[in-house]
Amino acid sequence: MFGVTILGNNSALPAFDRHPTAQVVTIDQYQFLIDCGEGTQMQLSRYKIRRSRINHIFISHLHGDHYFGLPGIITSMGLLGRDTDLHIYASPLLENILHSILQAANAVLPYNLHFHAIAEEGILVEDPKFSVECFKVLHRIECWGFLFRERKKLRKINKEAIRFYNISSVNFERLKMGENIITEDGKTVLNEEVTLPNKPARSYAFCADTIYNEPIADKVKDVSLLYHETTYLKALEERAAARFHATTIQAANIAVKANAESLLIGHFSSKYENLDEFLTEATEVFPNTQLAIEGVTYRIV
Amino acid sequence: MFGVTILGNNSALPAFDRHPTAQVVTIDQYQFLIDCGEGTQMQLSRYKIRRSRINHIFISHLHGDHYFGLPGIITSMGLLGRDTDLHIYASPLLENILHSILQAANAVLPYNLHFHAIAEEGILVEDPKFSVECFKVLHRIECWGFLFRERKKLRKINKEAIRFYNISSVNFERLKMGENIITEDGKTVLNEEVTLPNKPARSYAFCADTIYNEPIADKVKDVSLLYHETTYLKALEERAAARFHATTIQAANIAVKANAESLLIGHFSSKYENLDEFLTEATEVFPNTQLAIEGVTYRIV
Repeated sequence: MFGVTILGNNSALPAFDRHPTAQVVTIDQYQFLIDCGEGTQMQLSRYKIRRSRINHIFISHLHGDHYFGLPGIITSMGLLGRDTDLHIYASPLLENILHSILQAANAVLPYNLHFHAIAEEGILVEDPKFSVECFKVLHRIECWGFLFRERKKLRKINKEAIRFYNISSVNFERLKMGENIITEDGKTVLNEEVTLPNKPARSYAFCADTIYNEPIADKVKDVSLLYHETTYLKALEERAAARFHATTIQAANIAVKANAESLLIGHFSSKYENLDEFLTEATEVFPNTQLAIEGVTYRIV
Repeated sequence: MFGVTILGNNSALPAFDRHPTAQVVTIDQYQFLIDCGEGTQMQLSRYKIRRSRINHIFISHLHGDHYFGLPGIITSMGLLGRDTDLHIYASPLLENILHSILQAANAVLPYNLHFHAIAEEGILVEDPKFSVECFKVLHRIECWGFLFRERKKLRKINKEAIRFYNISSVNFERLKMGENIITEDGKTVLNEEVTLPNKPARSYAFCADTIYNEPIADKVKDVSLLYHETTYLKALEERAAARFHATTIQAANIAVKANAESLLIGHFSSKYENLDEFLTEATEVFPNTQLAIEGVTYRIV
């Protein structure tokens, strides 16, 4: 299972029972929290996502609607007796804020909190099955997007071809990696003759809060699911630019330029109660678009 | 109108759709926020209390369940274009935390934020109609209770007696203050002969998070409505003491010793889903007790 569950889809002012930004990315048994607006711990309870499964939290930037729920989650994990390490990835300024908050409460956490200051674009987490990278987006303050990628999948052994060439199983690992082999009698067997391609590796890109910024499209090229903010409808393009936010059309244009398979839009301004128009506008440019709705899990297939 | 509206009645871990501590005290056209747990701004919206009417926020102590909603409210008030001054009363440590948070967001508030560091017991706010005092309670970290008092009410003029003694209206202000007067022909008229007592001044005491601590009863002597925490039922008295919290029986005992008119209990541990037993236990000792229920306004008459 690879998917993202929306816990908050609203911009800074909570409204219409929509919450500030928070998303949970699930890759098999792993769960990652992206951003953590006020009330995220309640949203986790509401949608029955266990805090204890989250070991990595990524914070895009230090506007409050993206992290004011973080101190609460950190504290609650402590009260619940967590003993697993927790990793937080964010602007270095956050470390001091968290430190002051914990110190004022005279709190000693029963688990290790590892703070990873984000300084430049690159890999944040590496695992045999997946990686998480950060990339710059363009907002009023320093702001990071996050890209979750499955590792390139190994090629599959074609059993019939293996029998035909009479290839020993000691070669299978190298074949899965895409290498050619030389048989005992000195003949070269091309990899594609005895293996089959696996499904392509899937990916999810979270583009945080950003103004329309074409270089982002290159950074998330060919992504399976692209989350892009759409704080405003297209009529408010000027306001969007002035506030370093994006519109429906702009998000859809990034999806087109990135050659994304599908697009998820969110971070809706609290001036809009009904969200239908967001979908209507975005699909004009990029048909495979969905609204980010709280409580819904969008699977990446 | 003098009353308190409960926005959060739970202890640190949110549970059963109960929220961390926050209360709004209303005295006529004034509204005051006491504590501000995570999600308070959403609770204000839910119960249709306008953020813009709140000019004073009192924070009892720096455990997160009492203030993690504060940065969100401060920020949202700014986004909504507030221009009225906001006064915050809390431990001096909070000023640095708020400063770091606003600085990290590169936020410039469109209103003046006045931070008042609480250093000792005494008056925090004085108004011709009411006053707000703080007093120490006993918790794991420095913690303050707050006492809201109407000013002593003026005596009422007894119109019949005034006519009988033929007293000029120029004396009315002095009579309302309780003074005797001397008539034009040199006779002394005792105040109680020509005035009537007014209703006694009402008061509300918020005792925050505290262990059972008898000196508190003296500090809130004769209060109209006493809010006292009851994190645990009586069976967990030892756990309560170890964590610097109180039980139902202890809260009721403080109400008895304080000669309070009525008692409001809250800050229920998330280990209890049903709250009936809290009321049953407390009323054994102090019958005029109510459970603090979110969304309910308790009027002080």
